[in-house]
Amino acid sequence: MSNMGSRVLIYGGKGALGSVLVNHFKSMKSWVASVDLVPNEDADFNLILSESTLQGQSDQLKKLDDELQGSKLDAIFCVAGGWAGGNAASEDFVKSCHSMAMQSMWTSVLASELSSKHLKDGGVFTLTGAQPALKGTPGMIGYGMAKAAVHQLVASLAEPNSGLPSDSLVVAILPVTLDTPMNRKFMPNADHSTWTPLQFIAELFANWCSGVERPANGSLLQLFTKDGSTSVVPAEK
Amino acid sequence: MSNMGSRVLIYGGKGALGSVLVNHFKSMKSWVASVDLVPNEDADFNLILSESTLQGQSDQLKKLDDELQGSKLDAIFCVAGGWAGGNAASEDFVKSCHSMAMQSMWTSVLASELSSKHLKDGGVFTLTGAQPALKGTPGMIGYGMAKAAVHQLVASLAEPNSGLPSDSLVVAILPVTLDTPMNRKFMPNADHSTWTPLQFIAELFANWCSGVERPANGSLLQLFTKDGSTSVVPAEK
Repeated sequence: MSNMGSRVLIYGGKGALGSVLVNHFKSMKSWVASVDLVPNEDADFNLILSESTLQGQSDQLKKLDDELQGSKLDAIFCVAGGWAGGNAASEDFVKSCHSMAMQSMWTSVLASELSSKHLKDGGVFTLTGAQPALKGTPGMIGYGMAKAAVHQLVASLAEPNSGLPSDSLVVAILPVTLDTPMNRKFMPNADHSTWTPLQFIAELFANWCSGVERPANGSLLQLFTKDGSTSVVPAEK
Repeated sequence: MSNMGSRVLIYGGKGALGSVLVNHFKSMKSWVASVDLVPNEDADFNLILSESTLQGQSDQLKKLDDELQGSKLDAIFCVAGGWAGGNAASEDFVKSCHSMAMQSMWTSVLASELSSKHLKDGGVFTLTGAQPALKGTPGMIGYGMAKAAVHQLVASLAEPNSGLPSDSLVVAILPVTLDTPMNRKFMPNADHSTWTPLQFIAELFANWCSGVERPANGSLLQLFTKDGSTSVVPAEK
């Protein structure tokens, strides 16, 4: 595999998708850093975020400067996130908007900052949006809002003078439902053959790093899964 | 004017646009509440936000319950906002993302909460987006991201079961540049005939409250001004 010897960072490296990514890139002999609230023991380097504010976490991430000593990363995959439902009349509306912003937007912002500093020219940077957030999401307003912000962030980062290294690729994956243990637990009777396997995403990302089927810069890539098979469909601009 | 006796709330009522709205609705004999960091002396009722967190401000806004005693508002206009530039490599990138979220997203979220509680059936609720944020905004990433979140919030709120009162109208105005004293100060040599006059927006809002030229629910209304004349152009979905 041409990923051997590559250096990648997984933002959200202890989550369900993040853990699969860590293991996949480790199996390909990459050096793997994980950013999360808790360590991923399989990663080569862990950055633990204990601060609760955006600026505080940004400061904590500066430890990466010492570790990398100016060497660059081949890819940064931001797969942190979470889910909360609720409409504007929900008792937890404000709370859910805040937690969704922290889990999707702030992680994406901090991963963008890391990419501007540590990604190599021509490197790969992925963010995680959500297919439903391409339209209104009245039953999960905070979630949709935060994900729409991530979508627009990708559009900004893909343009010239965005602050990313030259020739880098920035895209977002837009899952509908990921096949995670948590989703299996809470939706045991759903049709799991329409959920996107995490391993599919790991292989997709590894391909992009190898230059295989690299999508257009700035793409919002919907992941549609049917009968266990996933297709990658760019959203129209 | 059929706005006589109406009750409106201006979120951001001491800002440039907010102040014009307060005065315009006062001139039409409406009862006007202002929400802002400082009071607007022309308003009938001021809600001052001194807390710095989203939840803290949400708690402060509960004072409106006591004032209204269950009576409903005809309209809520959220015109709070701010501007900051910067790309992902800017030193202030993280800071600007945070301040833009607070000034555009959190105000929109709190105004949405107020609308779910205090707007009358068939009432008018406006938010403030930004025309440039319909696409990528590499030179003002935090700003574009926060405004894109507001756009998607409008799409959510306009759908059934969003938590807003029945038959209410929710739209966003998407200015390019508003003709404010601050913009005149910082861009003295710009072509001011392409900037949108604040009074135009006040009259637009008053019309909608009177049922005149009420736009489609969920519209993102671009404000294009040329030779001092403004047209209202819904963005394509």
